[in-house]
Order: sequence, then structure tokens, then C-alpha cells
Amino acid sequence: MAEENAPVAAAAPAVGDQPQEKPATETAAADQPKAEGNGKAAVEEPPKAEMRAVVLTGFGGLKSVKILKKPEPTMGEGEVVIRVKACGLNFQDLMARQGVIESLPKAPFILGFECSGVIEQVGEGVEKFKVGDRVVALPEWRAWSELVSVPAKNVFAIPDNLNYVDAAALATNYIVAYVLLFELGAVKPGSSLILHSAGGGVGQAVAQLCKTVDVTVFGVASKTKHEALKGTIDHLLERGSDYAAEVRKVSPEGVDLFLDCVCGEECSRGYSLLKPMGKYILFGSSNIVTGETKSFFSAAKSWWQVDKISPLKLFDDSKTLMGFNLRRLLFHQNQSEYVANIFDKVIGLWKDGKVKPVIDSTWAFEDVGEAMQKMHDRKNIGKIVLDPSLEPKPKPATPVKGKSKNADKEKEKKEEDSSANGTTTPEVSSPTTKEKEKEKESS
Amino acid sequence: MAEENAPVAAAAPAVGDQPQEKPATETAAADQPKAEGNGKAAVEEPPKAEMRAVVLTGFGGLKSVKILKKPEPTMGEGEVVIRVKACGLNFQDLMARQGVIESLPKAPFILGFECSGVIEQVGEGVEKFKVGDRVVALPEWRAWSELVSVPAKNVFAIPDNLNYVDAAALATNYIVAYVLLFELGAVKPGSSLILHSAGGGVGQAVAQLCKTVDVTVFGVASKTKHEALKGTIDHLLERGSDYAAEVRKVSPEGVDLFLDCVCGEECSRGYSLLKPMGKYILFGSSNIVTGETKSFFSAAKSWWQVDKISPLKLFDDSKTLMGFNLRRLLFHQNQSEYVANIFDKVIGLWKDGKVKPVIDSTWAFEDVGEAMQKMHDRKNIGKIVLDPSLEPKPKPATPVKGKSKNADKEKEKKEEDSSANGTTTPEVSSPTTKEKEKEKESS
Repeated sequence: MAEENAPVAAAAPAVGDQPQEKPATETAAADQPKAEGNGKAAVEEPPKAEMRAVVLTGFGGLKSVKILKKPEPTMGEGEVVIRVKACGLNFQDLMARQGVIESLPKAPFILGFECSGVIEQVGEGVEKFKVGDRVVALPEWRAWSELVSVPAKNVFAIPDNLNYVDAAALATNYIVAYVLLFELGAVKPGSSLILHSAGGGVGQAVAQLCKTVDVTVFGVASKTKHEALKGTIDHLLERGSDYAAEVRKVSPEGVDLFLDCVCGEECSRGYSLLKPMGKYILFGSSNIVTGETKSFFSAAKSWWQVDKISPLKLFDDSKTLMGFNLRRLLFHQNQSEYVANIFDKVIGLWKDGKVKPVIDSTWAFEDVGEAMQKMHDRKNIGKIVLDPSLEPKPKPATPVKGKSKNADKEKEKKEEDSSANGTTTPEVSSPTTKEKEKEKESS
Repeated sequence: MAEENAPVAAAAPAVGDQPQEKPATETAAADQPKAEGNGKAAVEEPPKAEMRAVVLTGFGGLKSVKILKKPEPTMGEGEVVIRVKACGLNFQDLMARQGVIESLPKAPFILGFECSGVIEQVGEGVEKFKVGDRVVALPEWRAWSELVSVPAKNVFAIPDNLNYVDAAALATNYIVAYVLLFELGAVKPGSSLILHSAGGGVGQAVAQLCKTVDVTVFGVASKTKHEALKGTIDHLLERGSDYAAEVRKVSPEGVDLFLDCVCGEECSRGYSLLKPMGKYILFGSSNIVTGETKSFFSAAKSWWQVDKISPLKLFDDSKTLMGFNLRRLLFHQNQSEYVANIFDKVIGLWKDGKVKPVIDSTWAFEDVGEAMQKMHDRKNIGKIVLDPSLEPKPKPATPVKGKSKNADKEKEKKEEDSSANGTTTPEVSSPTTKEKEKEKESS
């Protein structure tokens, strides 16, 4: 499926601000010729329509992520094809890029676990959707594309008045947050919890859900975010610090719940900060991702630092250890029905006005590298979203002083360097484009 | 507190069938002279009143358990003195006898974690009780006695129409069962679970609570109990067998909950039989107790067989490991209020007719050894209760053929032998006394 990759210049204009919802073949035909050999289509076999997608060409740094033309997806039984309107970024995308999660496909492949959009084709045996339905989808890979085919069981309808960016931001983050709090954590009014990556998409979702049941939140976040998070988090703790004493000052007995998406040494700190009957839940291991490329050292360190625990210790302490991994639950444990049921509850809360996704920023496909870097550096507050209809940010017009190389070449060189030494120097983005909050169509 | 132990002959008649509720000093004075030196009380210091109690004189076999006269308990601030009407046997009592649980007091001490009775004295600062109140109590040790002083926080009122034997059977077992199912397990209609020691006190409580929410129960029990348990357990599995294939036949995906009070190799079997999002709960480790006396081998084996688990494994599998230890929760983690709240819920269910304790048998103090042995051999179905007002079972009248030693001596010798080699040959008890179900007074 990934044989004919034709790079699209990063600065090339996007197909259009608002792609029309025409049949897939027509849309793709419009921007297909330059990628299709000599441009002469055979009479018996019309040229395969193509689409733009965010493709991982090999594991490593940002340079491995390219916007390419790819054949439009074909659709099997029980699947639907979705025209993508917004794509969610999750930390697992960074882990996939670095090759540090299991069951990865062979590169090149299209990245992305999450998108919202409109159903464009309905496969055989699919009864719950029709063409034109507005949905969110959780495919295993391939979400960051103009079109994606997804098993209907992992596609969920959304209300008419929910815009696509918010829909993409509601899916994974709020499903995870809901499961952590209400399914596994079983929080009650008066409970307390410690939450890692409090400023991230899941973090903000957890904070909102906590408000619906009167739960006290200790949020761990970078110091630079504390000012912005004051309104949503009850007690702010500094990322990277040993905050145990600070928690004990407020809550001498510890907390009821510890939500860890960081792993490493946080596991044992979390366990020791639990009240009797308290629960530690591991739902991510972002500490494994440090720097531009896969770091064997940080991955190994994460494993070393995680103490194995005997059930007899849990028995003595009346404590609980839990794990939750939405991706594996959907794609390796066949729990789509369970997840669909949770998403229903999330939509119910949204309809009641009890939750409202926090959007950090939306980005064009061509700016995906910068978006990923922002997540890597934990600079986002709320959800980072890709929008295939957005124009890429304008690149600096003036070449660097005294050098003859053009700006694009310069940028590529820089990326290569940072990718090689594991550090990165992301460009400062133009605030006007970056913060631009386009009003999404609500069908 | 345990200096002046005066042994009471095992076959001696009990104080009376129904001890009157008189002030403690009067009651105890009646059966005190023979234990108190030359019988002449000093004028300034009246002889300390005494009571009968089940005393552990040293860790080991049944021979270490004696019915002795002990001074009546004194009462501190925040405590009440209870005249005991019924005492619950729990597996922890067997573990205490063998010295295989932590934080044991120095022998000799009075055994027992659980009793029901009437408040006879109310200490300073206790507002929630008055003399004459009917209660259950969860003291740390000393419950198996005619009188016991207990911190009021671990004493819970019972309804007028709940008899004392049922009350004692409702306390620990149903509190544990309730926490396992609804607090930790969070079972829902349609859930399934595997339950160890399905015939025991907790097992029967869990089975009844499962009926209130439509949960399917796989119960592990000795083959000999299967016929009797058919009515209460949906699927019976044989204790000691590898029942995994049998479970998979009925429930190919596994179960939602695995309730383990056995430990050892059951931990990994339980974990592997969990569905995604399933929970394993360890709430006992009865496999440590094998044979008459402490077995270092079986204790060590239990530890070896328990695989330590990394939180990262739980994350990959979306599974949960939990521990629950009521005794430590009450006495080392100060969670009496939490437990009182759970007992309220249990009483609510009892009032609604949704649960009714299953009593295996009631025993006189003097027959406590046989009662403990029955629990050790897993021969009970439901709760084993001691009743201080019961007369001991008649001992065999004819001495063993051709031997001059009297029956009592013979019995003591046998116990010593079995205690030494770790095996046991319990006497066959007379069914008429053993099964005797005395209707308890209901206040």
C-alpha cells in the first residue's frame, strides 16, 4: 500500500481551505496528475485516485514524518470510508514515530489514531451508518489523512452541533479520562487524586470530569504552565520535582487515586502517596520518549525504575495497581463495544454542558512536525489538532543572512542535525497562524 | 494482663446456658473463688473478677489453645465493655495460632477478631452507645471471651431482630464480601467472577451478594461440598485442580473478577483468567496454613509461587491487581469509619431480606479446637461460630481398650504427636451436638 510515495513540498499550498464533500475519486483526481507517472492514464485501468497523508517514512526524528500523496483507501466488509475534517494528536503518535511501542507496522505508513469527519462510503454489512453521517473514528494508524477506511465498530456518531475539532478532542482524551475516573478509579465526591501531565489533553479532560463530582485534583505540570492551569487544577505540583511533601501538607493521608502517564520513578512515588484502599493507574509511559529520536537509555531507565510488586504487598497495604491502554484494548483485545459505550457517556456529558474540550492549537498537515514537537516539549495546554484543510504557516521569506542556500534547504539541514544528535530547535511559529482558531463547520 | 492463667478442665461444665446480663463484677465473682489463691479476699482490694476466655498459650497446634480464667477487661477512654454472646471464626484465627501473620502479640493472649453481644459498660467520651445496646465488635484479638473491651469506633449497632449468631456471621464476612464486590470489584449486572473457598463464610456472603446484582459465580470448593453448594454457586470448580479450561468452556474470554483468599499459584492462574479490564483481588493467603503447626515450607512456597508483576505489564494488558486486608485496615490504617459505613450497607441489605448469613455450626468455647480444625480442613459451609453459653459436647465415656491412661490424657498425647509432625487426626464429632442449631435470643 505504500509503494509510490511522492513527496509534497512542505510549503506547497494545501488543496483548499474547505474541501468539498464530493466523491473520493473526484477530489483526489484534482491533485493527482503530478504524482502519477507521465500523466497518461491507461484506458482499462483508470489512474488510482490519491490523497494527502502524514506518512512516517522510518522510525526516528521529525524528518521521518512527511506529507505524501498516497492512494485513496480501499474499503473492506464492515468498514466505512471517512473524509477527515480533524485529527487528534496523542502521545502514542510520538512513541510510534520513535518506534517505542509494540505491534508497529513496517514503515512507511500513515500515522494517527484519531480523527473526526464525514462518512463518504459505507461498506457491506455496515448498518449503523449512512453516507454523510458525522463521526469520530479510532483506527489503528492511518487517521492523519484526507480519507481513511475504518472498521465501523471503531466509528462513533457525533451530535450535529459538535464541531469536528472539538469532536476529535473529545474522543480519545475523554474516553481515557472517563475510564480512569469512573470505571477504574470509581471516584466519589470528596476523593482526591494526583494527575500527571495535567495540562495535556487527557489531563484537562480529567480536570473537567473531576469538577462534575467534586474531586480534589493535584496536577503535575511544567512550572511555566502553572499560571494558565490555576483555574482548572486545585493544587499545582512541579513536573520533575519531588512533590510528595507538598501533597502531604494538604492531604496528610495521601490521595485516593494516582493517574500516571509518565511511568519510571513515578510508579513507586505514586504507590507510596496512596491512602489505604487507594489506586495507582498507569495509562502511559511518556518518560520513554525523550529527545528527537528513540533513546534506548531512557526506555531502559523507565523499565529499571519500575518496581515489580507482589500481590502480597498489595494485600498487606490494601492498595491497588491498575493499567489501562486504550489502543491495545481496541485493537488487540476486541473491546470496541465497551469503548463505544464509554463514548456515549462522554457525549452525554458534553450535551449536558458538563465537559467542553480545551483546544491548544490546530495545525495544517504540513506543520505536523512543529505540532509534534510542541507535544514532546509539553508546551500544549489541552488538545493539539491537525486540520487537513488548513494552509501551512508561511515560511520565513528572507534567506538567512549571507547564505545562498534557500530557506527550505536550510530547514531540512537543521532537522537532520537535530535528528542526529537527539536535540531539536523548533522554529518559532508565527502566533497569528498558530493561535488561529478557525470556526469549524458544524454540518 | 495474662499473668495468672488458671486452666479450666476441657470437660468442665460451662458457666451456664444463658449468662444473665448482670454487672461484670457480679457475674465473674460467681465462678472466681477456685482460681483466686486461698479464697480469702483482702479487705482493701477485692479479688479481681474473672471470666472464661479462649487463650492462645503459644504458637503452634490445637494444644496451644486453652480455655482459661482471665481477669475481666478494664476499659479505657473511648472504649466499651461488651458481654459476648457469639464469636465468629475467621481464617486469620488459624493463622494467628500458627504465628503466620504479622504484628502478633506475645503469647499468652485471648484469640478472636469478631463477636456480637451487649454493651455492659460505656467508657468516657463514648456517646454513640449506652448500656444494654446490642452490637457487633471487631477488636484486634480478645473477641473470644465472656467479656471484651473494644474501642467504640470498632463497635457497630445491630437491629433488634437480628440474633447474635447471625450478627457475628454478618460482620467480617459480609463487610469483606461487600468491599470485594462493590467497592473494589465494582461488579455490574452481567459480570462474572471466580471465587475461592466458595463454601466458606466470605464465599457464601459473596454468592448471596452476587444474586442481588445478577453476577455469574464460578466457585472453587472441595469436591465433597459440590452437592451442597449447587444451589448457591452457578459453576462449581474443584479445589486443587487446574480449572482454567473448565472456566474457558463457559466463558471463553475469562472473567471480570478473581477473588483469591488462597494465594500461592492461584495468583498467576487468576491473572491469566481475567478478561481485559478484569481485576484480581487478593484478600487472604490461606495456603500458608497447612497442617497443625506453622509450616515454614508452605509459607515460603506461597511466597515463591507469587509472581511479582510490573505495572507496565498491567498497562499492556489493561488489567488490575488489588489487595484487601480488613484487619490491617482497621488496626494499622485507622479506617474504622470506612468499615462502619460498609457495615451500615450490609445491615441495610439484611433488613431488605437480600442477604441471610449461612451458619455452618455453633460451638462451645471448650470445643474451639474441633471448630478450628473443621475450618482448617475446609469442611464448613458458611460461618463457624463460638457461643460462650453453650455446653461442651460430651466426651467419649469409655476409655480406649486395654489402656490404663484416662481419655483426656490420651487425647492430649495425640494432639502433641500431630502437632509435632505437622499432621492431624481430628476426632469425629458427634453430629447431634455439632449440628445443633440453638435459637438465639433476639434481645
